[in-house]
Amino acid sequence: MRVNNRNYETIWMDGLEVLLIDQTKLPFSFEIFKSNNYIETSIAIKTMIVRGAGAIGAAAGYAMAQASIEFENSHEYKEKILEAKKHIEGTRPTAQNLFYATEKVYQAALISTKKAVATAKHLAQQNSDDCKKIGEYGNTLIKEGYCIETHCNAGWLAFVDWGSALSPIFYAHKQGKGISVLVDETRPRSQGARLTAWELENEHIEHKIIPDNAGAWLMSQKKVDMMIVGADRIAANGDTANKIGTLEKAIAAKEYGIPFYIAAPTSTIDFDCSSGKEIIIEERNQDEVHLQTGPDENNVLRTIRVTSPHSNALNPAFDITPAKFITGIITEKGIISPNKLDSLL
Amino acid sequence: MRVNNRNYETIWMDGLEVLLIDQTKLPFSFEIFKSNNYIETSIAIKTMIVRGAGAIGAAAGYAMAQASIEFENSHEYKEKILEAKKHIEGTRPTAQNLFYATEKVYQAALISTKKAVATAKHLAQQNSDDCKKIGEYGNTLIKEGYCIETHCNAGWLAFVDWGSALSPIFYAHKQGKGISVLVDETRPRSQGARLTAWELENEHIEHKIIPDNAGAWLMSQKKVDMMIVGADRIAANGDTANKIGTLEKAIAAKEYGIPFYIAAPTSTIDFDCSSGKEIIIEERNQDEVHLQTGPDENNVLRTIRVTSPHSNALNPAFDITPAKFITGIITEKGIISPNKLDSLL
Repeated sequence: MRVNNRNYETIWMDGLEVLLIDQTKLPFSFEIFKSNNYIETSIAIKTMIVRGAGAIGAAAGYAMAQASIEFENSHEYKEKILEAKKHIEGTRPTAQNLFYATEKVYQAALISTKKAVATAKHLAQQNSDDCKKIGEYGNTLIKEGYCIETHCNAGWLAFVDWGSALSPIFYAHKQGKGISVLVDETRPRSQGARLTAWELENEHIEHKIIPDNAGAWLMSQKKVDMMIVGADRIAANGDTANKIGTLEKAIAAKEYGIPFYIAAPTSTIDFDCSSGKEIIIEERNQDEVHLQTGPDENNVLRTIRVTSPHSNALNPAFDITPAKFITGIITEKGIISPNKLDSLL
Repeated sequence: MRVNNRNYETIWMDGLEVLLIDQTKLPFSFEIFKSNNYIETSIAIKTMIVRGAGAIGAAAGYAMAQASIEFENSHEYKEKILEAKKHIEGTRPTAQNLFYATEKVYQAALISTKKAVATAKHLAQQNSDDCKKIGEYGNTLIKEGYCIETHCNAGWLAFVDWGSALSPIFYAHKQGKGISVLVDETRPRSQGARLTAWELENEHIEHKIIPDNAGAWLMSQKKVDMMIVGADRIAANGDTANKIGTLEKAIAAKEYGIPFYIAAPTSTIDFDCSSGKEIIIEERNQDEVHLQTGPDENNVLRTIRVTSPHSNALNPAFDITPAKFITGIITEKGIISPNKLDSLL
């Protein structure tokens, strides 16, 4: 997608170098992080220079390819690349896509370095292609003039390109449909206000940031035609774990008869997980609620406290939206009812 | 209520002086604003040093009393106090309680200055007494061990003392009930995270600030026993205008069978307004969404941007919660079903 009217992917490989959009600097500055070896790429994953399931997977694959190049002429090639694999896998031990990518590229690296690089590039390309397919299918749901609400950032920055929840929006816009987007701020980390808004602005798509509190009210006033959000994990029965606040929007959408869609690659579906009840919700550091960082009027980045100084906060990072609130799941294989995910097996 | 273990009201009069807790400085510093005349008290109202329907009413009454003292020996007493009345009424022209108070104290001032001061003090005392009554009635709904969620700030700072939504909580706590409170942050102005949390901390009531996104999830996990919020205006049919986000919580509470109460003095009920459809929702400046102010690590107050630099925001200040989502309205006259408000006529 576009940044300053030039096309970018979130991550790409050029010779030995892996290049990543530094997402810790967005939206206040746009910088490319250059990694010369798998250790530096691992740091990029760990420090969230790269984030989002799809982008992390691609980064991990590229890191393995870097290791294969680095140790190509080593006498201990096999030991070294296995060591690299373990190192990369230790960066974000709960990211499912990361393990999938390291394993695939490791197997290729056992054949040849050339094969490892080709496999890493293929994995990234596959991620981008799948997301584009989500856009193509999702676009069929979007009518001219639609106002679409979205929560958090499930845009191209979370993948290699296109994204999941934003992909149908990008696709519809590229088709020339006149659409607009309501962007939930998504406290406490404000990925909507910061990343989703930034992505839409760069693509010149009409949008407004709204406080998380405003969703139900705007739905009740018929200002929202549909809602599309991403997913962190989808259980076999369609229950969906996603960023905190998704559940609240889904309940409100049901109340006002507004279609509520999940958009995610089928790799997000965990058939070993029978229902949302099995998913454990991570509670994150309360400082994410208390502190906010951004530029002051002189464009100096400052971190301030936005809550009463001696109070504590609770910070559940995700919630589970039961399948009954979900109209459909938009995947690279088509739009599926949340109750019929086993048709994919 | 307590601040630093000493009892305060939001506003009080001492001789000619009106003293107000400066709410623009909270929660980061606690300062008393001293006003020597009605002009200074008017400035305090206009600049939101004092805020909240009840507190504004009391401030306006005291300002009228100050005018009466100031012009007591003037040859043009009647003209001067009428001029003062118009000046005070121009500070916040949509605040209903302000007009009620200026009129009452003006009528008293036509009799004597002594009567004006006594009337202003009586109005403030009445406000505090009514709020305490709300606490007494609301307390009957609260069981030992309850966790109560609240939205925005409808605490004592918005009135003279006790508050509306927080009054039952203060009352139950004073009765020795073990309770805890979940405080919605209440973006964009964060009155929950800043003022409600500060009030509860000062009263040593167990509480946690939660992102506005977390309410439905915590309800679904049975972490919330009841919800109490305030009101800006209640229509004759029970539909209630309150801070943006109230509707979203009310819908979620209904979904999970959690009692959802409005707490407000009966003066908040507008019998001339037949339903919520007649209430026009103010849209406030989008900078409230983009900018946040708070102390940095050196305790210097900074204003930073928290959203993507070139995006716009939508900032509806209130929403309307239909009566069907409201379990009951806690008033100084008892707990009333939203469908039976005419019993108060």
